[in-house]
Amino acid sequence: MKNKFYQYILNLQDQITSKLEEVDGLAQFREDLWERPEGGGGRTRVIENGAVFEKGGVNISAVHGKLPDSMQKLFNVGEADFFACGLSLVIHPKSPMVPTVHANWRYFEMYDTSTELSTGSRKVMNSWFGGGQDLTPYYLFEEDAIHFHQTCKTACDKHNPEFYPKYKKQCDDYFWNAHRNEARGIGGLFFDYCKDTIDSELTKQNKQMSMEDWYNFVTEVGNSFLEAYVPIVEKRKNLPYTPEQRTWQEIRRGRYVEFNLVHDKGTLFGLKTNGRIESILMSLPPHVQWHYDYHPVAGSEEEKVVKVLEKPVDWL
Amino acid sequence: MKNKFYQYILNLQDQITSKLEEVDGLAQFREDLWERPEGGGGRTRVIENGAVFEKGGVNISAVHGKLPDSMQKLFNVGEADFFACGLSLVIHPKSPMVPTVHANWRYFEMYDTSTELSTGSRKVMNSWFGGGQDLTPYYLFEEDAIHFHQTCKTACDKHNPEFYPKYKKQCDDYFWNAHRNEARGIGGLFFDYCKDTIDSELTKQNKQMSMEDWYNFVTEVGNSFLEAYVPIVEKRKNLPYTPEQRTWQEIRRGRYVEFNLVHDKGTLFGLKTNGRIESILMSLPPHVQWHYDYHPVAGSEEEKVVKVLEKPVDWL
Repeated sequence: MKNKFYQYILNLQDQITSKLEEVDGLAQFREDLWERPEGGGGRTRVIENGAVFEKGGVNISAVHGKLPDSMQKLFNVGEADFFACGLSLVIHPKSPMVPTVHANWRYFEMYDTSTELSTGSRKVMNSWFGGGQDLTPYYLFEEDAIHFHQTCKTACDKHNPEFYPKYKKQCDDYFWNAHRNEARGIGGLFFDYCKDTIDSELTKQNKQMSMEDWYNFVTEVGNSFLEAYVPIVEKRKNLPYTPEQRTWQEIRRGRYVEFNLVHDKGTLFGLKTNGRIESILMSLPPHVQWHYDYHPVAGSEEEKVVKVLEKPVDWL
Repeated sequence: MKNKFYQYILNLQDQITSKLEEVDGLAQFREDLWERPEGGGGRTRVIENGAVFEKGGVNISAVHGKLPDSMQKLFNVGEADFFACGLSLVIHPKSPMVPTVHANWRYFEMYDTSTELSTGSRKVMNSWFGGGQDLTPYYLFEEDAIHFHQTCKTACDKHNPEFYPKYKKQCDDYFWNAHRNEARGIGGLFFDYCKDTIDSELTKQNKQMSMEDWYNFVTEVGNSFLEAYVPIVEKRKNLPYTPEQRTWQEIRRGRYVEFNLVHDKGTLFGLKTNGRIESILMSLPPHVQWHYDYHPVAGSEEEKVVKVLEKPVDWL
């Protein structure tokens, strides 16, 4: 499974970066290969100063070794070996009319350390998939929100009709900027610990999902990403905007930074366990502003976005 | 003591904001009074878009009530009441030639909850002072670093010759941006838990400090702030700078944001315990940039600053 999924994200990275380069028409992704001293490494691809994309990263990594102490605590296990691979992307468009997007698909294996690392036949104690995709607009086009969520739902429904409502809610819960009492964006999907046990919450269908079934689901979502995002970019990338609208985008990007540095478990985990900093922090927007106690004008388009972020919306 | 120190920070806030307005010559501080639902409140003063100061806050607060769970854990105590007051300031100048400065002076009391809150005669279980001041330059003028540290040392030496080296080191240790493996700035002073016990580390002098002695020390440092910072501002505020130097400042401000949101205990404590968000996050710079994997040119003035931040310098 780990080889199959790693091959999948290698190919998906190629697909996504070549499509985004085509949409941008100017800039190309720069590639950096890196190694993790404790085992594994990654292929970081970053685009900057494009015609459409101001900054973005589409990164894959596959790391392995001893499970760090912090993860032993998190998973409530003792010493173990692990393997983890995934694709993470964050795209910050130049125009405030085009939303920022984030997506991630990952696979995790944990091994019993009583079998030797070198035998190549270690017992897998536990393995699971996780991931999702979510949208952060600066101006609200309802049809875009609906398109994004509909694409998520279509991918989910092929596997289980309960997945979309469940993972949509998990996304709203996870990307909650608690200290601001608002959502980071308008959501999408978020799922984690997808493994081959009967999910007690999925009682209606009581459908057993094998790891193969989860692979099919996660890759279905991965394959839906470009369809979910690119039509929105194409529709909005040539809209005119004012310097004031750009300022609003930069202020809202500040909230994105706050979420990623204060609340996002993936970012904090990377920072505190000696991950490759530049690959982790590619998620931070290129130009950001913080004004003291800034509030949009009542009734404005800016206020409309804020209102939508105060309480998750059922877009479908 | 708590009334005396609160009076002191009220006056100090006035002194500092009127002096900074005079130095700026254009902008004035805006004042916001706020109340904490659980008890107490504050007086936030923020300056924006000045001739010299692009954004800055000089805030005081005095809060009291039940000790939050997170602080019970931190202090390793059970249920208790507390009182805390302090002045916090962060000033982000417009010119990259003028350093950012941060300072804080605070006093904390904890009470036995077996005596009634309403009696007015609760037993103080524990009380201490904390604080410090530190400088974050974007371009290095060695004489400025020396002036700042010399002013810190002069204030410390009036109380104990061991204070400056001790609190200078604590400042270097605290403002360490661990995930970047560099200091936030060139340091200054940082002290905490200053209380009326013999400090085991101050063995040479074995000098007992009463709370009155600590009050005199902390206010000595508070009184030294304008002398430590203003001459540097006056000397550098009219230097010319290029757009490239401004970009460098905005990139370095990104590191300031990273420290404050990832590592700073005061910021995180405020965010996670329902503090007044806009007063806490006044510390974030107005315009910030993140470029992927940015490195200054070898031998440049920009690289010189980075080198100095990699390992704390003994400026005196």
